[in-house]
Amino acid sequence: MAATISMGQYLFRRIQSIGVDHILGVPGDFNLHLLDELFKIPELKWLGTCNELNGAYAADGYARIKGTPIALVTTYAVGELSAMNGVAGAYAEHAGMIHIVGMPARAMQKARPMIHHTMEPNMDQDIYIGMSAPIRRTYTKLSNPATMAQEIDRVIEEGVKSRLPVFIYVPLDIVGIPLDATRLQTPLNTTVTNANKEQEDEIVNTTLKLIKASSNPAILADVLTIRHGGRDLTRRLVSATHFPSYSTPLSKGVIDESSPNYNGCYNGEVSFPGCAEALESSDLIVNIGPLLSDSNTGGFSRHIDDNQLVLLGHDHCQVHEKKYDGVHFLPVLKRIVEALEKEPAEYRIPRTDVFTKVETPVLNDSKSGAITQSYIWQRIGRFLKPNDIILAESGTAQFGVSDATFPSNTSYITQIFWSSIGYTVGACLGALVAASEMKNPGRVILIVGDGSLQMTAQEIGSYIRFGFTPIIFVINNNGYSIERAINGEKQTYNDISMLWDHQKMLEFFGARKDTGIDSRSVACKTVEELEAVFQDESFAAAKSIQVCEIFMDQFDYPWRLNAQLVIGRAKLRQAIQSYKE
Amino acid sequence: MAATISMGQYLFRRIQSIGVDHILGVPGDFNLHLLDELFKIPELKWLGTCNELNGAYAADGYARIKGTPIALVTTYAVGELSAMNGVAGAYAEHAGMIHIVGMPARAMQKARPMIHHTMEPNMDQDIYIGMSAPIRRTYTKLSNPATMAQEIDRVIEEGVKSRLPVFIYVPLDIVGIPLDATRLQTPLNTTVTNANKEQEDEIVNTTLKLIKASSNPAILADVLTIRHGGRDLTRRLVSATHFPSYSTPLSKGVIDESSPNYNGCYNGEVSFPGCAEALESSDLIVNIGPLLSDSNTGGFSRHIDDNQLVLLGHDHCQVHEKKYDGVHFLPVLKRIVEALEKEPAEYRIPRTDVFTKVETPVLNDSKSGAITQSYIWQRIGRFLKPNDIILAESGTAQFGVSDATFPSNTSYITQIFWSSIGYTVGACLGALVAASEMKNPGRVILIVGDGSLQMTAQEIGSYIRFGFTPIIFVINNNGYSIERAINGEKQTYNDISMLWDHQKMLEFFGARKDTGIDSRSVACKTVEELEAVFQDESFAAAKSIQVCEIFMDQFDYPWRLNAQLVIGRAKLRQAIQSYKE
Repeated sequence: MAATISMGQYLFRRIQSIGVDHILGVPGDFNLHLLDELFKIPELKWLGTCNELNGAYAADGYARIKGTPIALVTTYAVGELSAMNGVAGAYAEHAGMIHIVGMPARAMQKARPMIHHTMEPNMDQDIYIGMSAPIRRTYTKLSNPATMAQEIDRVIEEGVKSRLPVFIYVPLDIVGIPLDATRLQTPLNTTVTNANKEQEDEIVNTTLKLIKASSNPAILADVLTIRHGGRDLTRRLVSATHFPSYSTPLSKGVIDESSPNYNGCYNGEVSFPGCAEALESSDLIVNIGPLLSDSNTGGFSRHIDDNQLVLLGHDHCQVHEKKYDGVHFLPVLKRIVEALEKEPAEYRIPRTDVFTKVETPVLNDSKSGAITQSYIWQRIGRFLKPNDIILAESGTAQFGVSDATFPSNTSYITQIFWSSIGYTVGACLGALVAASEMKNPGRVILIVGDGSLQMTAQEIGSYIRFGFTPIIFVINNNGYSIERAINGEKQTYNDISMLWDHQKMLEFFGARKDTGIDSRSVACKTVEELEAVFQDESFAAAKSIQVCEIFMDQFDYPWRLNAQLVIGRAKLRQAIQSYKE
Repeated sequence: MAATISMGQYLFRRIQSIGVDHILGVPGDFNLHLLDELFKIPELKWLGTCNELNGAYAADGYARIKGTPIALVTTYAVGELSAMNGVAGAYAEHAGMIHIVGMPARAMQKARPMIHHTMEPNMDQDIYIGMSAPIRRTYTKLSNPATMAQEIDRVIEEGVKSRLPVFIYVPLDIVGIPLDATRLQTPLNTTVTNANKEQEDEIVNTTLKLIKASSNPAILADVLTIRHGGRDLTRRLVSATHFPSYSTPLSKGVIDESSPNYNGCYNGEVSFPGCAEALESSDLIVNIGPLLSDSNTGGFSRHIDDNQLVLLGHDHCQVHEKKYDGVHFLPVLKRIVEALEKEPAEYRIPRTDVFTKVETPVLNDSKSGAITQSYIWQRIGRFLKPNDIILAESGTAQFGVSDATFPSNTSYITQIFWSSIGYTVGACLGALVAASEMKNPGRVILIVGDGSLQMTAQEIGSYIRFGFTPIIFVINNNGYSIERAINGEKQTYNDISMLWDHQKMLEFFGARKDTGIDSRSVACKTVEELEAVFQDESFAAAKSIQVCEIFMDQFDYPWRLNAQLVIGRAKLRQAIQSYKE
């Protein structure tokens, strides 16, 4: 092995070492030389996306499935700014990425000529670095050969541990600089640990005592459980304790929903009947990885008191009133689970095997007629198979999917906190890449509204280009129905172009006879038509890319959206009335 | 007339007053109430774009044609960040817009709950305002009713005068607040003036003297001439003086190219033979509205000395060595032109009627065979008619179009400084809107490469939705040929999906029998095929939306791109060699 390795290859070798096989991005003249270094690493495959925003969404989607950040390569200014909203969403919802930005040569940065992508007043290429400050955990702008390798290592390690976006800025003249290759023999340290072992001990011991003492315990696993790598531990916690367990709208799938211990999706007052009451009456709620945003808490309508609570968060823990800042749940949860598994009989108290199971109501078991919001989501739930990955776009879809019951090992992606429409079309590409790397046996199923689809539609072409075969459900309901529910139901600003022919979409983007790429597109206006599709084994097998267009009324909204809005409006009215400058 | 008007209507009435009939944007739950106020103004029409980046590009394109900023409405965080790269381009190239961002109610901003589109650590909704700081001239976040109207006026006035993006942030609870309507009777003051009249006098008088004394004068009108409203004055300057006159790659069309005084597109060493020599040997160069970026100066290879120069810029002027900071060219140029027109015989010296006309070489007059870069651009020039608006995408197209000769009154849009690919597809929508408002009798012609098209393709659907009939030339050459020319000619990172069927694009997006929308799509692989299209009167009439797909070799680059790269590479090598930290 050579004693040196180029800076570019060093970077990509390090990224490969965290467990990714692909690199996403868009070429631009300031990253091409860096990409040449990437192309010298046969184990890594480049996937170009149609644009940078979609690329960022894809990186986010990849991280949510794989649990590891992927790299996104853009070119400075135009590329990095285009990606910004996608990176911000990954920051808000803890779906990290390593955003690598190709920059002009160091000499050009210093001289500040008026080259393309600069701007007045002074052509300072660092201004874009400043613009991204709030949406990253850390960054490095590589310049000094003596520290490049350690800077790369530091930023990647922090990105993996924090699950937040990190940025590496690479001037084009440095990509070939030789770095010490022997450094690569020391693996990156990406293990999350807590510095304060005493605090950790205290949380573990108190929690175990509370578990033992509890007469009516529950587990509430929220989305940051998944984001921060705690899903499997949480499932082991459920198995060890048999406690009734709950997910949230963002974390659906974190608990195996086919398990007898799964007791529903808790969203404050916007939950199925009996669900909130069951959870909120527990004397102990082990709440892992909370993300307490409006639409993940029924509009802030959760009722959990400190004296019921063991909170295991990524940046703090809390046992009843006592807070432990800076303690990460992962090592804590691991120790709790290991203790429970060691003496399960001590903790898995018979009472928890006889808890009151919340019955999931059947909202609408239509067999015919128009396709309604009350019918579709639970029906899609029954269409799912174990190991499927399902993505629900911001809008009616993501409020609807909470009604579905998932089979075991379903992975679910939605972005109900950042809520950027069009997100899932890009994220689905990332999910497909992750699923292929993981050899996931399930299907990838995208549910997207017609308005959101128009934001990012071109990436459907990338699914085809790279040979992926997702099932795409397009909700055709004339525009932004979630906005109609909020305001201006009949205002034309909530309309979109209704001229797109979704039945021709796959053909346009590349699945045709002349390309030899199979596909299938169907349109359903009635329950009968849709049932025929759901029951068609060849459709369900998902061997080629497929679109199922579902026509629905533009004024039909999921009940959860309506309920959430009633709560939200009341709170807003109250806030406005009591507002003083 | 009522004594009060809602804040929202006040804002849109002011925007209407600067001369726009449309508002662009994407609805989101924090701007819907504001849009309700817009919809109460029958003179303004809402045009929803597919996404915010495209909306920003459209706003930019509109400003370049109309000379007036249009408003772009987005929702905070997700919307404003998606638009960011488009706004940045408009900042860099002085194509302003009024970016109106709908925000949560003031009470919600103060309370900072974890509502959607916020982020940790503290849900501060102002962080996005901070992120846009470098790409705007000024902004206001409306909050205090006592100052809202004057703040709106201030920001719009500054936006119009500066030709740079400005931002108005509107919390959703204020849109109905009553403001003093009588204020609207006082028009906004958008006239550019110079405070220092003495400096202005000096520049005008010295310039007139130099013009009189010059034996070999020239006019070089660059792109900020157009952006800052000086095109008509410049044409009057040419008419009054008969001086040989030059454009640049960014400003092509600023001088009537059918005029006997037009002497070529000056781009330093990357000009047609004789062009640079003719200009650079002038003893007086009146250089208006310069934008001295790499690709607008032949890679910084212009040779103009101070002792030849009268520079009339938007933020400073210069006469020989003497600089006048803060003086805007517009009032100066107006005075110079008026003086010249008053006594034309004094200034229009016979010598300027007999200057050496630079002959435009015929690069390639193919009549058959493959379509090449050397053939296509001059041929497209001959296809143009007076009053056409032509857009050339970043990439080979924008380097090629400099070869074309434009008929009179051609308007040209390209973004060779900011250089964000995909830009023209959005900008074309804005150009179409501006052209319709102006009742421009010409056609709108978009030239876009296949790679760039994939970035922003969905906006083609908006052309169809809103009934526009541009001619779209799609250069089909398997990806990013401009990047191939720069680096990695055969590297697959420069490939794109070649599976899209451009012949089916208009059909997919809405021009079909079932919608009753006419269209035409043709594909040309040879000169013969393309000539047949160019000579087809029904194609040239552009009565329906049309795609002409032109197949070209992926390794064929315009000569200007090659020449520019040779210069750029030499300078880069030199800079890197002499670089010290």
